Amino acid sequence: MPDSAPCSTPAPAAAIVVAAQAARADIRAGRYAGQTANMAAGAVQGNVVILPEAWAADFLRFCTFNPKPCPLIGLSNPGDPKLPMLGEDVDIRSDVPAYRVFENGKEVDVVNDVSDLWRDDLVAFVLGCSFSFEEALLQGGLSVRHIDQDTVVPMYTSNIPTVQAGPFRGPTVVTMRPYTPVDAIRAIQITSRYPAVHGAPLHFGDPKAIGIADIDKPEYGGEPVAFRPGEVPVFWACGVTPQAALANARPPFCITHRPGSMLITDRLNAEMAVL
Amino acid sequence: MPDSAPCSTPAPAAAIVVAAQAARADIRAGRYAGQTANMAAGAVQGNVVILPEAWAADFLRFCTFNPKPCPLIGLSNPGDPKLPMLGEDVDIRSDVPAYRVFENGKEVDVVNDVSDLWRDDLVAFVLGCSFSFEEALLQGGLSVRHIDQDTVVPMYTSNIPTVQAGPFRGPTVVTMRPYTPVDAIRAIQITSRYPAVHGAPLHFGDPKAIGIADIDKPEYGGEPVAFRPGEVPVFWACGVTPQAALANARPPFCITHRPGSMLITDRLNAEMAVL
Repeated sequence: MPDSAPCSTPAPAAAIVVAAQAARADIRAGRYAGQTANMAAGAVQGNVVILPEAWAADFLRFCTFNPKPCPLIGLSNPGDPKLPMLGEDVDIRSDVPAYRVFENGKEVDVVNDVSDLWRDDLVAFVLGCSFSFEEALLQGGLSVRHIDQDTVVPMYTSNIPTVQAGPFRGPTVVTMRPYTPVDAIRAIQITSRYPAVHGAPLHFGDPKAIGIADIDKPEYGGEPVAFRPGEVPVFWACGVTPQAALANARPPFCITHRPGSMLITDRLNAEMAVL
Repeated sequence: MPDSAPCSTPAPAAAIVVAAQAARADIRAGRYAGQTANMAAGAVQGNVVILPEAWAADFLRFCTFNPKPCPLIGLSNPGDPKLPMLGEDVDIRSDVPAYRVFENGKEVDVVNDVSDLWRDDLVAFVLGCSFSFEEALLQGGLSVRHIDQDTVVPMYTSNIPTVQAGPFRGPTVVTMRPYTPVDAIRAIQITSRYPAVHGAPLHFGDPKAIGIADIDKPEYGGEPVAFRPGEVPVFWACGVTPQAALANARPPFCITHRPGSMLITDRLNAEMAVL
């Protein structure tokens, strides 16, 4: 898969959609099964959760109660694998590079296509992802430390509770990016424009104030990032939060994307801005 | 019920919450059963829909699919009449001045309290209302014609379809406010900051382009407003849209607020601004 243009060179809208469709076609055909960062730059990528209808109502309430970590950008009808609001051809059974399959809260398989596992009662949820607001930060002239370092964004379990919905409950998982106060203020302004992809930060400054004991020990596969003089950590709600809630809820059957291997949609990051 | 301060004089946040709680206490005690426009100025008011759990999942999907007409600001757990996200003491059984009770899509009663009708399977939905963005327009120095005229905002059935969810489907109902292009641009900027209360307009200019044959014949109890030279109609999604969808879905049991008699919450209109 060739690298697409860097985020800092915005592509015209039509070219972004063409790139998204081409990426999905490769993924659907089994030609690509890796990470999706920097693919189809300018296109919204999404976190994926697939649940049986009996569990979907509670999970939809969980997303509604917790819009910052769980910003819903796509939702299927029960049994329908299509998500026309994210692209006419989007088929959630085949268009994600890699899927994690869970039974009773335990991962039982990682696969590249879930067509064989699809059922008439499954509901697909697609949640916004920080790739969208990171593009906006870069285009706004800010740097993003983990992108500079070419590492995975540091993620932490905070003590900020989510609002429980049925069996879905747990802490808010957050991502962290270091900024000087001046840049943090600008980052707050920029990300506030994107409520559908986590929006404004939840916290900045003392990590302990939100229950993070050691900023150098991120979780969920993220890596520490270097701080420069005068920088403070700035924390945003993270799309991994629903995976923590799923681990608590332990539904009999569930499918998610493999972290980092997201659904690439035809929606534009620029469309997500409310102003 | 004494009039509260006009919208153009913002009250400090604490005073707004006190006014909201006092208004709810009056309503809960049966001392007020009228329209809520201009009550507890600064507090968010909401449209109310109460449905059995068996229908609630589809309606929640309908709201999720159609966030502009159906911006969800509160949602109860099944059987739980409390809505703590809108105020600790909010009880949806008693805190709305007047309720419409429907059976199989037909209104069978209008009452001031639904405690006797409450059931363990009912789910309450509260949707944002244009009162919030109208306050922002006034505070932004714009006039709102139907407020100047002291009439009910004109509402129209557009040909803009909603996205269907189960039995819930129908056209988008819109409200209209006349503005000069310069003021319309500012109104677009201001309301864009409030996605949780209908957000930016859906259309401006030719009413026929969205299926409205006669701008002087509003529906749903709204009244025509006067146009001044150079003004164009500007159309926003309206919270009556779900009532049109409910009329199509004809659930066996449903409760809504009586239009104009909204739930007054402890949330601040100013809180609804994303930036």
